[in-house]
Amino acid sequence: MDFEQFFKDQLRRLREENRYRVFADLERQAGRFPYALWREEAHGPAREVVVWCSNDYLGMGQHPAVLDAMRGSLMLNGAGAGGTRNISGTSHHHVLLEHALAEWHGKEAALLFTSGYISNETSLATLAKHLTNAVIYSDADNHASIISGIRNSRCEYRIFRHNDVEHLRELLAATEAERPKIVVFESVYSMDGDIAPLSAICDVAEEFGALTYLDEVHAVGLYGEHGAGIAERDGVADRITVIEGTMGKAFGLLGGYIAASAGLIDFVRSFAPGFIFTTSLPPMIAAGGLASLRVLRGAADLRARHQDRVRYLRRLLAGVGLPVMPNASHIVPVWVGDSSVCKAISDRLLMDYGIYVQPINYPTVPRGSERLRFTPSPFHSAEMIEKLVSALYECWHDRSFALDPTGTSSLPPSRNVLARSSAYEAVARN
Amino acid sequence: MDFEQFFKDQLRRLREENRYRVFADLERQAGRFPYALWREEAHGPAREVVVWCSNDYLGMGQHPAVLDAMRGSLMLNGAGAGGTRNISGTSHHHVLLEHALAEWHGKEAALLFTSGYISNETSLATLAKHLTNAVIYSDADNHASIISGIRNSRCEYRIFRHNDVEHLRELLAATEAERPKIVVFESVYSMDGDIAPLSAICDVAEEFGALTYLDEVHAVGLYGEHGAGIAERDGVADRITVIEGTMGKAFGLLGGYIAASAGLIDFVRSFAPGFIFTTSLPPMIAAGGLASLRVLRGAADLRARHQDRVRYLRRLLAGVGLPVMPNASHIVPVWVGDSSVCKAISDRLLMDYGIYVQPINYPTVPRGSERLRFTPSPFHSAEMIEKLVSALYECWHDRSFALDPTGTSSLPPSRNVLARSSAYEAVARN
Repeated sequence: MDFEQFFKDQLRRLREENRYRVFADLERQAGRFPYALWREEAHGPAREVVVWCSNDYLGMGQHPAVLDAMRGSLMLNGAGAGGTRNISGTSHHHVLLEHALAEWHGKEAALLFTSGYISNETSLATLAKHLTNAVIYSDADNHASIISGIRNSRCEYRIFRHNDVEHLRELLAATEAERPKIVVFESVYSMDGDIAPLSAICDVAEEFGALTYLDEVHAVGLYGEHGAGIAERDGVADRITVIEGTMGKAFGLLGGYIAASAGLIDFVRSFAPGFIFTTSLPPMIAAGGLASLRVLRGAADLRARHQDRVRYLRRLLAGVGLPVMPNASHIVPVWVGDSSVCKAISDRLLMDYGIYVQPINYPTVPRGSERLRFTPSPFHSAEMIEKLVSALYECWHDRSFALDPTGTSSLPPSRNVLARSSAYEAVARN
Repeated sequence: MDFEQFFKDQLRRLREENRYRVFADLERQAGRFPYALWREEAHGPAREVVVWCSNDYLGMGQHPAVLDAMRGSLMLNGAGAGGTRNISGTSHHHVLLEHALAEWHGKEAALLFTSGYISNETSLATLAKHLTNAVIYSDADNHASIISGIRNSRCEYRIFRHNDVEHLRELLAATEAERPKIVVFESVYSMDGDIAPLSAICDVAEEFGALTYLDEVHAVGLYGEHGAGIAERDGVADRITVIEGTMGKAFGLLGGYIAASAGLIDFVRSFAPGFIFTTSLPPMIAAGGLASLRVLRGAADLRARHQDRVRYLRRLLAGVGLPVMPNASHIVPVWVGDSSVCKAISDRLLMDYGIYVQPINYPTVPRGSERLRFTPSPFHSAEMIEKLVSALYECWHDRSFALDPTGTSSLPPSRNVLARSSAYEAVARN
């Protein structure tokens, strides 16, 4: 068969659907976050822009304590780990960081992975495969990495409506009592920014003896007295079997982890292929993670300022009538509902205003729910926020986008319309 | 169900089979490779050991050019990338490194992943899933990441006997001509160190119009005039559709990549969940990769010294009658054939001689083929090599291991005995 023609055809279809992705070539600038240099061409001139869509939510990727720890480890230990965790790739920093993560979450043990994606994928697949005849109950809006883990386990699974505890209960009740059950959900959902009712989910899971697996990647560092996430904030960490987190977002680094009982962690450590058969994180990343964690534990002020920036942006957006999607988190999505308009606004913000926010299109969100997703940090000044809202307002009302204002400046449709999870579809197709 | 009891039972079984893994807690020492500090207890005293099982084959993880580039990027760009490649996580270093990797392999384009594991898993799954009705032909000894990608694609697959081109031909010939075909193999096999007949595999693949996917993770940086791998050495890079490599081994860093046609790379970039939905590598890792690649291109002397160290170790091992497994690569496995003896020798080398080599047990190799796997680097001195062989000889003939000398000091059984691929079994079970 003509493979090249096949790839071309597939890419043409993406372009026709206005969802061909163009990556912005950025140079982050430590000490000047959220500024970055942006290049339109790899060897062309660079221009300074304000980044409005980073998941380095607290700017920890430029924190002096983190950079010092990493530089120190780089110079002392060198660059990479040199092997898998089992074969020469466990550094002392890995060991110390795993202890610290476990303690932070109030768990007996923790385990590092090279990414949050692989931590979900391989942990869930391993647990579900080995627990004979298990059933997984997965929130409809769960992340692609969770879905991939579930599918790869080849276990039976049921999808409960997003954050719908009654639906979860119905599904649990309809399953034979003796089968092992795993309830999988997130605390803060990345693209809508809404927060799960953790306590109510724990109630139901406990009623049916189910193991709970909670993805806190958009919450660790950001919520709770010591920043250990929504489970800490809501006082339910001890009721969650597995807390999964990342160092790729509020930690400002790279890598994922799970925290749980010593037995469960040792089990995943011993059986998960995505943990066993891969080079471990560089010691310097673990050293940086340890430094970041130490800062985050005591960063109540930074968290307060973060939430303050979020409130200010929301208030201004709503004030000028832009359709900001309501939620109780730090994620500020503005509803567009059309992939080409979303891309056009994003391009215009970048080119004319030096504002970088990536359009969020399918498969990251369902078709027809395209949006711009803003993530204000403690380092976004009032002036930056005001400039953003003013620029977005101008773009929004520019008729050249052929946007129907009544269709787009209204609030998004109810959650039920969105409940067809695009990620399930995308992973199934991929 | 009692989850905790389940985990305990599973772990007890591992212990009973002598394959419970204990990770060595190491502190690598830049500038003093292959020395490292080893701790028996996390908060106990550290002791200097010589590492004999690192995949940082050339010590690039301590190369000044690599460390300088990383430190520079760390201080200028900060720690992490801050997002997925699509959403604010593409740094200028990623762009430049992908160009350089493509050029190195003589391909139009390249794509970075957070690990070699995920590059295999998600690229293979994505290609095989989208190519309607495809069949994959996979070498029996392929790595767990390849097997995982194949299984997750849910495609039909056939396993050809390790490095057996005639068997591959039979399997290809037995398939309908019009079906898309993907032949997946490695160049240097990690645990046996043998090298695939690339040119003969290309001949057969071309005869049947199959796409070829070659894993060169244990070869990039180490073979070929410019270090681009066995495909470069054998002059067949242009006949391989996809070359997969890693920055986790000879580059001394972390991360994987594929290099191929512009269309194929753009296709994987656009459709692979394990690429799309994950935080990208820190800019400093990409900067280090670029520096490492520049050194490796011109590192013929380093490669020559590497091979010289390998030859010297092999000669001494064979000279004292230890069962070193023959191969044409830089990997020096010594056959043990028993998991508890393998562990006992490894423990004794560490405790009594300050020599660290991890026992290689199931599922990394098939049961009954346990071994010690030595990876001499250009920085292992003649004295270190001599000490290793003398220490190993002493351990080997220590009767306290209750080792039957006739059973273990002979060469390993023929390849056919090993052909039941343990990794397939392990991934299937996991």
